[in-house]
Amino acid sequence: MGKLLDFVFGRLLSNSEEEQQRIGPLAGIPVLGLDALSSSAYGPEAAATVLLPLGVMGVAHVLPITIAIIVLLVIVYFSYRQTITAYPNGGGSYTVARENLGPFFGILAAAALLLDYVLVVAVGISAGVGALVSAVPILQPHLLSICLVTLTFITLINLRGLREAGVAFMLPTYLFTFSLLGVLGFGVIKTMMAGGHPLPVANLPHPLGSATETLSIWIIARAFASGCTAMTGVEAVSNGVKSFREPVVVHAKQTLFLIIAILILLLGGIAFLAQAYGVVATDPTAPGYESLLSQLIAAVVGRGVIYYISISSIVAVLMLSANTGFADFPRLCQILARDNYLPHAFAERGRRLVFSHGIITIAIMAGVLLFVFDGVTDQLIPLFAIGAFLAFTLSQSGMVAHWLKKAKSNHSALSIFVNGLGALATGLTLLVILVSKFTEGGWVIVALVPVLLVLFYAVRRHYIIVAQLIRSHQPLTFDETRKPVVLLPVRGWSHVTLKAMRFALNISDQIYGVYVDSGEGSAYTSEQWKKYVLDPAKTEGKVLPDLVTLPSPYRQLFNPLMGFIDELEVKHPDRQIVVLIPSLVVRKWYQYFLHNQRALLLHAALRLRADPRVITITIPWYL
Amino acid sequence: MGKLLDFVFGRLLSNSEEEQQRIGPLAGIPVLGLDALSSSAYGPEAAATVLLPLGVMGVAHVLPITIAIIVLLVIVYFSYRQTITAYPNGGGSYTVARENLGPFFGILAAAALLLDYVLVVAVGISAGVGALVSAVPILQPHLLSICLVTLTFITLINLRGLREAGVAFMLPTYLFTFSLLGVLGFGVIKTMMAGGHPLPVANLPHPLGSATETLSIWIIARAFASGCTAMTGVEAVSNGVKSFREPVVVHAKQTLFLIIAILILLLGGIAFLAQAYGVVATDPTAPGYESLLSQLIAAVVGRGVIYYISISSIVAVLMLSANTGFADFPRLCQILARDNYLPHAFAERGRRLVFSHGIITIAIMAGVLLFVFDGVTDQLIPLFAIGAFLAFTLSQSGMVAHWLKKAKSNHSALSIFVNGLGALATGLTLLVILVSKFTEGGWVIVALVPVLLVLFYAVRRHYIIVAQLIRSHQPLTFDETRKPVVLLPVRGWSHVTLKAMRFALNISDQIYGVYVDSGEGSAYTSEQWKKYVLDPAKTEGKVLPDLVTLPSPYRQLFNPLMGFIDELEVKHPDRQIVVLIPSLVVRKWYQYFLHNQRALLLHAALRLRADPRVITITIPWYL
Repeated sequence: MGKLLDFVFGRLLSNSEEEQQRIGPLAGIPVLGLDALSSSAYGPEAAATVLLPLGVMGVAHVLPITIAIIVLLVIVYFSYRQTITAYPNGGGSYTVARENLGPFFGILAAAALLLDYVLVVAVGISAGVGALVSAVPILQPHLLSICLVTLTFITLINLRGLREAGVAFMLPTYLFTFSLLGVLGFGVIKTMMAGGHPLPVANLPHPLGSATETLSIWIIARAFASGCTAMTGVEAVSNGVKSFREPVVVHAKQTLFLIIAILILLLGGIAFLAQAYGVVATDPTAPGYESLLSQLIAAVVGRGVIYYISISSIVAVLMLSANTGFADFPRLCQILARDNYLPHAFAERGRRLVFSHGIITIAIMAGVLLFVFDGVTDQLIPLFAIGAFLAFTLSQSGMVAHWLKKAKSNHSALSIFVNGLGALATGLTLLVILVSKFTEGGWVIVALVPVLLVLFYAVRRHYIIVAQLIRSHQPLTFDETRKPVVLLPVRGWSHVTLKAMRFALNISDQIYGVYVDSGEGSAYTSEQWKKYVLDPAKTEGKVLPDLVTLPSPYRQLFNPLMGFIDELEVKHPDRQIVVLIPSLVVRKWYQYFLHNQRALLLHAALRLRADPRVITITIPWYL
Repeated sequence: MGKLLDFVFGRLLSNSEEEQQRIGPLAGIPVLGLDALSSSAYGPEAAATVLLPLGVMGVAHVLPITIAIIVLLVIVYFSYRQTITAYPNGGGSYTVARENLGPFFGILAAAALLLDYVLVVAVGISAGVGALVSAVPILQPHLLSICLVTLTFITLINLRGLREAGVAFMLPTYLFTFSLLGVLGFGVIKTMMAGGHPLPVANLPHPLGSATETLSIWIIARAFASGCTAMTGVEAVSNGVKSFREPVVVHAKQTLFLIIAILILLLGGIAFLAQAYGVVATDPTAPGYESLLSQLIAAVVGRGVIYYISISSIVAVLMLSANTGFADFPRLCQILARDNYLPHAFAERGRRLVFSHGIITIAIMAGVLLFVFDGVTDQLIPLFAIGAFLAFTLSQSGMVAHWLKKAKSNHSALSIFVNGLGALATGLTLLVILVSKFTEGGWVIVALVPVLLVLFYAVRRHYIIVAQLIRSHQPLTFDETRKPVVLLPVRGWSHVTLKAMRFALNISDQIYGVYVDSGEGSAYTSEQWKKYVLDPAKTEGKVLPDLVTLPSPYRQLFNPLMGFIDELEVKHPDRQIVVLIPSLVVRKWYQYFLHNQRALLLHAALRLRADPRVITITIPWYL
């Protein structure tokens, strides 16, 4: 058993090994950046798809919208750099909002992020597997199974620990980064050499349809909101600062810089080349759909080896982008649990120093989503950005409050400006996204966040009440200690009864043997009691009470016993009542069916009685 | 809760009310005779169906075969009369075979009967609902649901008690008996008045096909074997003698006589009129199928009111024939449990003095059969008679052995002859049935019986071993009683800990507080321990041990504790170790998720350790 666990999850890690589980920037990108980087595979396409009804006119707007997103990204980068410096112990949106704006905004950010992470996992896996399946159509019938196997794989990797996840995901991440940057760079050079109008290597499948809608602020806003899905995941680094090796702040900043820089290059390159090559989005619901990125790579390098390498790495990275959710969800749950907003079990570290409960929870929730949507989660994509941008805005606003509190130097003024700009920009974006996505499913998030808030408050309220109730400043007193009264249900005489009786003698001088008579006649039991208990007691000169026989005409066991306990409580008002239950313990589970589980049931019934004066003790006799 | 139980199952019955639950012959027929009587609805048809391939020639053989079955029935009647006299406490096949032929033959009969009863229930309900559905085709899609609802209804009626079942089933039983006997009698009179060749009132739907097979002993044997399904259920009375009011033997014999007499009249009447009216079986798998009995009633009285009353009563009686299984299965299980062949729970009487476990078991098994066969259990009909005739044969042979043992008077010689003839006749019939039904599914019964036998022996073996192991003739000794050593896991100081600590002081003078340190630092706990335990102890001049801190670098709770228990066992070789687990008990089930169930898990882990010297006590603190 232990060996099996070791094989699947890795050996137990001691607390002292935590330092070695920390990561540097090289592993940081796969662990914390996969979500952000992989979103370049769907962000620009999402924006371009919205512009589709504009026809030729729409193509011209992809680049400006992408530039707007890049500007936003730069603002957010500087904003989060400051957060990392200010919160070297992990400046997740929850922490920053809670400390500077108050607990309500903290858990508001937490609720938004938790939902976002679950969506990240489900949509990431679904998108990756969807891309895989459209490349290898023979896998189509197994879509859901592949999704769930991928989920299980990522879950196991994460249960093995953070470092292992970083190492395992490094290869696909860097393959994705370098192949895509290479293709894009090659395309840019070709474009410049061709004077801005390069010829596509492969044929582009779809000529653009004619416009069915006219240009409006509304359609541009919707395209921008869709494109902003490319920005989800950039908060992961500031959230996970504690995962880094010392010096943590330096390593975290390096990682954040690398992630944002690569993301900007990818987004910019894709938008620029899409315009240069005249690549347009195709309708994903129509037959013959091909993703923007696939068309673009084919246009630049043709459908050869490089094309297939790039596409494979995109598939892999999409599937693994779920990992960001796995890295952050459990950590956020732990912080919430520590602050009493979630069950304390989420704050416990498992075999490999990870927060196993959180990992398993997000795995189950994402698995349910995948199962309910049958592995196709396209409808969930619009919901994505809401949680993320709500968290961005709260976090940046929190930072502004943070600087205002310690506003002393000029340095502060710049800091306030940077974070204020971030808050403003992400806040405005959140508004745009909320308005444009509300009817497309955004309302679900808007409805779920209050539900989570109520849950958090209810959990916290319970913990606070319990803590108050059990708090004691009463020292132990020794005067009132007194042996308890023992009640021992008996039926005949056996080793099982003998062991219980011996224990009773060890802890008490007032023992009642009780026989519940359901009509079988009590002669046998009382005869045995006399022979094995009363006679030796008499010989030794000890006083032992007679056996009490409780008649039970309705063949009930518990009611007569409960009545007798009531009597004892009246008779011994100042003593505890110990109910000793002799119990035969069998070796195999199926043998349980052969014995009436009276001991178990009686124990449960006494527990339900919730009588503080009654202590129930099962005296096991092992076969 | 109690009121709901009272409403559904009836109020609790006291042991003293058992006498009033007993029945007379009038209620005895519905309770114990439904199976036998209802089988007249399918027995003759089963025989006629086998003869179908013989064409016109086959019709002539239905009557002789029925006469053979009636002769067998008369033999069995006299045979079982003697059994009732000899075993007024219930002479089921199990009892008779066990006492006279030995335990093996007893449980062989029991296994056969148990299988038979489950089949009776499933096939009875399925046949009744099938007849209902073919009369009201709109119900067709709900076949399985109606079967399961009927099963639930019969189960509830039986859980309410024997007498209630008799009263509830009286109306359909007597409606069936009188309407069918009336129709048959009317037909016989008409036939005699028409000189043996009456004209059918309604048209008979199907002219007979031409012969596809020639007459052979084989086909006659198969027809006879199929017809013998009409005899299943006649052992029920001798089995259930104890259900009758005093004088039990008289009431039981009256009931047996009535059942057999009615059955003979029904079988004889059906066979006679079928020949007189030229009614033949139709292929049940072909469209336009109509049951023999339906054709016959239509031929005699036309398709008017009487026809529909008769058919309804047949439907009702078939559905309720399941009740015989419900009456006998639990009683047989009780006897087997008393003899240690089945779990003892089967021998316990529930709220209404019935053997609830047996009732629920047969309900579940029949429900599974109905579910697996989707409510159509035609394939199970051939399996029916095997168990019944095996039990008949063993029971009659047992009676022969019974008389041989006490062979003294001339009276014995007659008794031996009657039961011997019964054994011979049923034994031969069993052979015919086995041979002719083996490939049609009879092998399943032949295979299942040994499985049940192995189960019976395994259960009995377990009980015998346990009884030997726990048997004790050791009287209680008082010299060696000594207070146990107490181990109390602590974590901070609270009312929960305080209550456990007080209890520890009440039962022991050697207490170890144990803190398992998973790396959170033990300073808080040991400081509290000093303040609330050690300081007051010092003031009182009591000696209390220091708090023991067990380091747990792998964040495990149980391993360090188990290690410490090992140490204690070495240190105190002659004392019991009590592990006191302080436990917070919450009020609502969902609050359990908010607390790490360490108390529960530790209790379970210590139970798994199966260490006879360790007693685990959970000290509950109720919120």
